[in-house]
Amino acid sequence: MDGIFAVILAGGSGVRFWPLSRETSPKQMLQIVGEDTLLRQTIKRINGFVPPENIWIVTTEDKAQSIRFHIEPLGNLAKGIQFINEPVGRNTAPAVGLTAIYLNHLSSESIMVVLPSDHAIPDTEKFLNDLRLAIQGAKKDYLVTFGIKPNRPETGYGYIKVARSSKTKPKGLIKVDRFFEKPDLKTAKRYLSDGGYFWNSGIFIFKTSQILSEIKEHLPSLYRTLKEIESILFDSSKPKKPDKLNKPNKHNECNKLNKLYSRLEPISIDYGIMERSQNILMAPAKFKWSDLGSWAALDEIIEKDKTGNILKGNTIDIESQNSTVFAGDRLIATIGLKDMVVVDTPDATLVSPKERVQEVRKVVEALRQADREEHLIHKTVERPWGSYTVLEKGDRYKIKRVVLKPGARLSLQLHRRRSEHWVVVSGVAKVTREGETYLVHTNESTYIPINTKHRLENPGDIFLQIVEVQNGDYVEEDDIERFADDYGRPIT
Amino acid sequence: MDGIFAVILAGGSGVRFWPLSRETSPKQMLQIVGEDTLLRQTIKRINGFVPPENIWIVTTEDKAQSIRFHIEPLGNLAKGIQFINEPVGRNTAPAVGLTAIYLNHLSSESIMVVLPSDHAIPDTEKFLNDLRLAIQGAKKDYLVTFGIKPNRPETGYGYIKVARSSKTKPKGLIKVDRFFEKPDLKTAKRYLSDGGYFWNSGIFIFKTSQILSEIKEHLPSLYRTLKEIESILFDSSKPKKPDKLNKPNKHNECNKLNKLYSRLEPISIDYGIMERSQNILMAPAKFKWSDLGSWAALDEIIEKDKTGNILKGNTIDIESQNSTVFAGDRLIATIGLKDMVVVDTPDATLVSPKERVQEVRKVVEALRQADREEHLIHKTVERPWGSYTVLEKGDRYKIKRVVLKPGARLSLQLHRRRSEHWVVVSGVAKVTREGETYLVHTNESTYIPINTKHRLENPGDIFLQIVEVQNGDYVEEDDIERFADDYGRPIT
Repeated sequence: MDGIFAVILAGGSGVRFWPLSRETSPKQMLQIVGEDTLLRQTIKRINGFVPPENIWIVTTEDKAQSIRFHIEPLGNLAKGIQFINEPVGRNTAPAVGLTAIYLNHLSSESIMVVLPSDHAIPDTEKFLNDLRLAIQGAKKDYLVTFGIKPNRPETGYGYIKVARSSKTKPKGLIKVDRFFEKPDLKTAKRYLSDGGYFWNSGIFIFKTSQILSEIKEHLPSLYRTLKEIESILFDSSKPKKPDKLNKPNKHNECNKLNKLYSRLEPISIDYGIMERSQNILMAPAKFKWSDLGSWAALDEIIEKDKTGNILKGNTIDIESQNSTVFAGDRLIATIGLKDMVVVDTPDATLVSPKERVQEVRKVVEALRQADREEHLIHKTVERPWGSYTVLEKGDRYKIKRVVLKPGARLSLQLHRRRSEHWVVVSGVAKVTREGETYLVHTNESTYIPINTKHRLENPGDIFLQIVEVQNGDYVEEDDIERFADDYGRPIT
Repeated sequence: MDGIFAVILAGGSGVRFWPLSRETSPKQMLQIVGEDTLLRQTIKRINGFVPPENIWIVTTEDKAQSIRFHIEPLGNLAKGIQFINEPVGRNTAPAVGLTAIYLNHLSSESIMVVLPSDHAIPDTEKFLNDLRLAIQGAKKDYLVTFGIKPNRPETGYGYIKVARSSKTKPKGLIKVDRFFEKPDLKTAKRYLSDGGYFWNSGIFIFKTSQILSEIKEHLPSLYRTLKEIESILFDSSKPKKPDKLNKPNKHNECNKLNKLYSRLEPISIDYGIMERSQNILMAPAKFKWSDLGSWAALDEIIEKDKTGNILKGNTIDIESQNSTVFAGDRLIATIGLKDMVVVDTPDATLVSPKERVQEVRKVVEALRQADREEHLIHKTVERPWGSYTVLEKGDRYKIKRVVLKPGARLSLQLHRRRSEHWVVVSGVAKVTREGETYLVHTNESTYIPINTKHRLENPGDIFLQIVEVQNGDYVEEDDIERFADDYGRPIT
């Protein structure tokens, strides 16, 4: 559809899915349900409905690069996608506002479909049908949202109360009375029996001009800052092609924009706009939906076995009930669990009753306080060229398995405090060492002395795997000087 | 004390402590409570009370070698210890009977102190005091057992009912009315309120002549077989020094003995003798004791924190109660657990309510049925020369870290289907490869081609650690041909 833009909010960190999510692997990048990660599913769902260049991903600068690499498997689709970088995370109202500022310079009449990047919506067809209806409302200058018919007194979602009597057009859309924040159980039960309350899906559809006008009315301070940012970004009001977005390209412009954005008060679009506007329509969703707010939320979206369990990966279970076990290659054996969640990863395991699993935040906070890695990275770390897995770290040594995609190569680099032995276990490696270049085949090895410029490359068309044994008095990742890099990473 | 022999029963497999226990790492070889493993604690407890050569370990042939290596750290003490090998496990009555046959040829008046190898007794002094009393009873031709005063209606132990009215000497020992098997909860409650019932500790003290006479009376078929075995082992009845035990040294003798023993009916000494004999005294134990029958039994013997938890290793807990978390290096995060057990090892994790943790047997059975390794070995496998840890196994490769004790060496060996790259990460390796011998220092590497005789040795006085990367179409442990071995393992 012309003039319609999918704005995918992908700045979230997803602490609630620890230990599967980490700071460098937020929830939207995980494959929790369905055939792909939540972000890639979100992109695929909207692809075709809008052209790739009308899909805009909004995320923080620190996440943008890893998200770019993350969507790379989508091929040409990924190449079309635009990125809007938030200098820092300031919640959804500033993120939507910033995006609207960019979009407004293409056309103030364009329609924004604001999509969280980490929700589950299994049925694309139903979703797109409902979306067509919602767009009719947005075209008439309403803010439109999807409401989900509740089937239980859920306390983890916000609610939308509809105004029963009022008539609206287009047909099928319902005028919203007001939004409510997450209720307590008693209130949630009342909402459920009332019948006039819906879950707030967090998906919003509106015109660019309309959301800016609502921000002006309800969040005037944000609006003023957005206008300042606009004046930095655009020296004329002439519409531009989406692939010709203005970016601050001067250092002091960039600094100024960052400073302005950083000073914004973090506020959600739900709280800042939706709870205050009188101009909202709701489309009652016919599609199945979950915001996957915690490990317990999988119950809504994944089919359970006959005793109510969800068992994934290497598990052996003896008579558990209504429990979720998310395992990988390691064996998780469970006996007689009731309403429990067990999540296993190579370096950390979580065990919690479902009803308390939200408190995983406290675990992540404790790890952060203790400056530990288990909240930050996985044992396997994704890189633009492939990945590496830390197999073991000991006193003065570290053992990694490194995987390179066909054609990929690491940066030309040097380590001041460690040497490296490389043994090729599959594929062929092209090694550069102090100017000399040579091939190392499967079941051959080579040695990179300390303080020696080197580069590892996969010249073949299958994956290259090497085992790297590091020796040195300091074997951390930050002992690296880069001299050339294919992926735009900083050169020393 | 002269003529007193500590007979330590170490044939158990300890399935109930999976995943910490494995077939190759039975419970008695684990450090679950206290400063050392249960077996080594059992040996240290009795050491000094009897001389080392009067400590006899009874175990099955398949476990004997690993137990020998396991007790090696005890130094000279270990060197004095005798081993009695059961050809196969046939429970405790045949094991005690076989030991009595050996001992009877030293002196029929010798006293056997039969000790399980996998119980916890924190206070050695109190134990030895009580033991002195028990021995007085054994000298008067009684079977003597320790009874533990119950403090709860435990259903996991057998019970001893004492005969209240009867007088016995020596003073302090009480005549036993009879033994009872593990009761149901109702019966256990009755035993507790009655006051005349004690837990059966499984520790027994008797004269060699007396136990053989009881076996003759209550297990006549076992007695006949023992006499046959005796006739194979001893051609004269002349007493022998304990370090000059006759062993079947002819092949057909050995076969005959194995066949006889294998045919025995497995029966416990509790059931076969203690529940039938009228000749039993009980010493009421003043020492603290647990048979560590399951993960839940740790509660009796390990001090808990103020909310009743036992947290060991790398754990983060949010408000759990009365729960046990046994972790290693990997992080185990727990939230709001109640009466749960979580046990983590590098390749498997168990999660169970305490009250069902005995059902871990079913997990082990399932693993055995599926022919999986997680019940058999740990990722780190102990060897006489040190240990190895499988860091990763993939398609056509395997990565191990190998640790050699100072002075130790592996067998001279050869692999038909894999080559090996060795990188030394600490210490110095002496490598033999097709007759050539050379040193490989830390941060150096070497290569062992397929079909090449080789040997790895640690000539230094610190531990040697190497990373071994195997390449080949088959990378299992059984691809090994041994040509020479320091530890008596079979040569190809």
